[in-house]
Amino acid sequence: MAPRLAAEFFGTLWLVLGGCGSAILAASFPGVGIGLLGVSFAFGLTVLTMAYAIGHVSGCHLNPAVTCGLVAAGRFKAGEAVPYIVVQVLGAIAGAGILYLIATGKPGFELGGFASNGYGDHSIGRYSLQAGLVCEVVMTFFFLIVILGATHGKAPAGFAPIAIGLCLTLIHLISIPVTQTSVNPARSTGPALFVGGWALEQLWLFWVAPIAGAVIAGIVSRTLWPNEGEVGGDGR
Amino acid sequence: MAPRLAAEFFGTLWLVLGGCGSAILAASFPGVGIGLLGVSFAFGLTVLTMAYAIGHVSGCHLNPAVTCGLVAAGRFKAGEAVPYIVVQVLGAIAGAGILYLIATGKPGFELGGFASNGYGDHSIGRYSLQAGLVCEVVMTFFFLIVILGATHGKAPAGFAPIAIGLCLTLIHLISIPVTQTSVNPARSTGPALFVGGWALEQLWLFWVAPIAGAVIAGIVSRTLWPNEGEVGGDGR
Amino acid sequence: MAPRLAAEFFGTLWLVLGGCGSAILAASFPGVGIGLLGVSFAFGLTVLTMAYAIGHVSGCHLNPAVTCGLVAAGRFKAGEAVPYIVVQVLGAIAGAGILYLIATGKPGFELGGFASNGYGDHSIGRYSLQAGLVCEVVMTFFFLIVILGATHGKAPAGFAPIAIGLCLTLIHLISIPVTQTSVNPARSTGPALFVGGWALEQLWLFWVAPIAGAVIAGIVSRTLWPNEGEVGGDGR
Amino acid sequence: MAPRLAAEFFGTLWLVLGGCGSAILAASFPGVGIGLLGVSFAFGLTVLTMAYAIGHVSGCHLNPAVTCGLVAAGRFKAGEAVPYIVVQVLGAIAGAGILYLIATGKPGFELGGFASNGYGDHSIGRYSLQAGLVCEVVMTFFFLIVILGATHGKAPAGFAPIAIGLCLTLIHLISIPVTQTSVNPARSTGPALFVGGWALEQLWLFWVAPIAGAVIAGIVSRTLWPNEGEVGGDGR
Repeated sequence: MAPRLAAEFFGTLWLVLGGCGSAILAASFPGVGIGLLGVSFAFGLTVLTMAYAIGHVSGCHLNPAVTCGLVAAGRFKAGEAVPYIVVQVLGAIAGAGILYLIATGKPGFELGGFASNGYGDHSIGRYSLQAGLVCEVVMTFFFLIVILGATHGKAPAGFAPIAIGLCLTLIHLISIPVTQTSVNPARSTGPALFVGGWALEQLWLFWVAPIAGAVIAGIVSRTLWPNEGEVGGDGR
Repeated sequence: MAPRLAAEFFGTLWLVLGGCGSAILAASFPGVGIGLLGVSFAFGLTVLTMAYAIGHVSGCHLNPAVTCGLVAAGRFKAGEAVPYIVVQVLGAIAGAGILYLIATGKPGFELGGFASNGYGDHSIGRYSLQAGLVCEVVMTFFFLIVILGATHGKAPAGFAPIAIGLCLTLIHLISIPVTQTSVNPARSTGPALFVGGWALEQLWLFWVAPIAGAVIAGIVSRTLWPNEGEVGGDGR
Repeated sequence: MAPRLAAEFFGTLWLVLGGCGSAILAASFPGVGIGLLGVSFAFGLTVLTMAYAIGHVSGCHLNPAVTCGLVAAGRFKAGEAVPYIVVQVLGAIAGAGILYLIATGKPGFELGGFASNGYGDHSIGRYSLQAGLVCEVVMTFFFLIVILGATHGKAPAGFAPIAIGLCLTLIHLISIPVTQTSVNPARSTGPALFVGGWALEQLWLFWVAPIAGAVIAGIVSRTLWPNEGEVGGDGR
Repeated sequence: MAPRLAAEFFGTLWLVLGGCGSAILAASFPGVGIGLLGVSFAFGLTVLTMAYAIGHVSGCHLNPAVTCGLVAAGRFKAGEAVPYIVVQVLGAIAGAGILYLIATGKPGFELGGFASNGYGDHSIGRYSLQAGLVCEVVMTFFFLIVILGATHGKAPAGFAPIAIGLCLTLIHLISIPVTQTSVNPARSTGPALFVGGWALEQLWLFWVAPIAGAVIAGIVSRTLWPNEGEVGGDGR
């Protein structure tokens, strides 16, 4: 279990450092910034790269919603979910911490939202709570459908990390303006702890909505792909 | 048949929600918008991700023109085309509906074209009916050539979703300014129902041209790849 | 031989229509244009998509320099090079023709350079003849090194289209400002015939330099990968 | 050994010519420049393309830090590290030289930083020495984790070049503003020799930090993936 938890810790650290890091350090660089397109690729590539590196160790969930969705689909043991989620959150906090260390090395650094997720006045597009809720539920639902389908026994072997990583890119291409895109409670928790205030007050949505969407997908998947049972601890 | 139709429904929903969603929510975001390049990737990635997730269920057509082209090529049973096309259109409408729900959560939202396809005054580049017609026929022709070739028995196994998804990205990189890019009658129908008026009046072109291009490709493919016969219901 | 020549014709048509089309129709679209980054992806994706679709038919050269480099490396029969090159040029002209048909559907269309390659005053970055010559030779050299290495018997099977297509993307990311990037005499010839004048006068460079770079790579490859002999007509 | 050293020479040449070349020639092209996003893709694609082309020859390190990290992980013979590193540096210098030859072909060319790495006043985002040090150590650490994990015997075969190349893209998406991104002492040395002065004075950091991060990853990997011993000279 130790190597698997270490893998989840490092992987989630990488997700937050890479995804939020690209947003904070590079998205708005004057004249040549990578924009929301670059941030979308960065988030997706954290998962693509880690899924090839540690997928064979821990399944590379990196996300409490993914872990819950896999449990709901019967693809991951419920008893292992809690330790997975704990190290995912710890990894996300560590990733936000390293990012803080780097980002504060720029003269005149201002914390701002620090890539936290939000709705209403704290959505970068000022989308309402309702819009954010629908968006996070639906995006996580489809994220899990892609994860469950691409790791299915009948899907081409070896390609799941590409499908899953680029699905996260796609989700960001759609929804950064709505909530800054979570679909991952750990990713939301890391930066929120550094921002405090509104980021912590709104954090509940980014636990509730992604997990709800993921669990619904897990249940639906039993209809879409019948007879795909428990596949052990490393579900990807 | 039920899981296959459910897969086509969810898949086409995702195509419209993801592709049109990125265009409406993120393309023109001030300063960091994803632009037509990001929209092109979004459309392509909806297909890439779903092809890995549900290709082994339904073949992942997500597009009435693709279904017709596969029939013309002898790769899909004609009798199954109608139910496929019906659920594709229903999925596209559902995708546009969810997108409408999210998009209207932004204060001051204006419907505009809602990513509908158009020509003449309703092409974002003001391209004529004739240019739009040629463009949609040719683009769908090559889309089907790539689909038929990449899923051919002699092509490397497992890579077709990458080739096909990125082909849709490529098609958008070329042709969004001409017609906002359809090559898919279901994708055109979803948003048009919300816009009404001109979008419905011009909708005929985005049924006729893609299906024509696809059927021509299906016939040509019998010359390019002889002896590739009926391969059952899940042609991809 | 007929299906192979048809495949090369359609493939090179797609390369010119897709690559030059993205440049002419979408690169500078106001506010949301795809830029040189989008054009670079478009060129690369024409090759990636076609290599999966027709690689198993003709080897998917789509480029007289590639054909010559494969001959120099001992991977393609010299006697088949001429018909390949003839249909590649015909396909490129057809691609430029279809593009002309679409592009002229926009009110106020101006031909301009029509994505022709050039140097000196006709390089979009005003790079000299010498810089253009060095750049085209070196870029084509590395293009062929990647083609020859990725299609080598010891390379992972099935991935060559990704490596080769994205290599063409990379080459465009570097060198569009220098010569508008050729590395492909057929791609240069298609648009030049529509522009005439300077484009035809400078066309010689885009035959000489890519073929020189490709042939040098073919010879060098015999040292890098010894004992990789003739592999028949479809070298990829 | 000669073909392996030749492969490392050409590969590292390509990395510097492609990555730094895209930055110098195309990143800031007026109106349609590829920006930091395009440069990030260019660096990553040099590795992706070469890993398919020469991975089966030399393992495609192209980077003294990668070579050191593989030695620390027990995946590469220590006695072969020095010749590898020597030809990597020579290749990087040759790549910078060819780039200089092309870049100076533009009227009014100014050398500027020539894509050299730097910190403090020579970081394009003015990040401090401390921030640059942390960033380079951490980025190289995760680069090696991805390399070691994706080339592990249990990882899907054939996909490592995609994971590794796109990991380098991701690293650039995060960290170009901090140090112009090195994670590769050879890549830093090539341009620095042309710039001299501050670039040479700061060069030490881009040898120390990447190698430190890589060696730490090599040691950590023995815990994450136990029982993965020496795999011979071509570790990828």
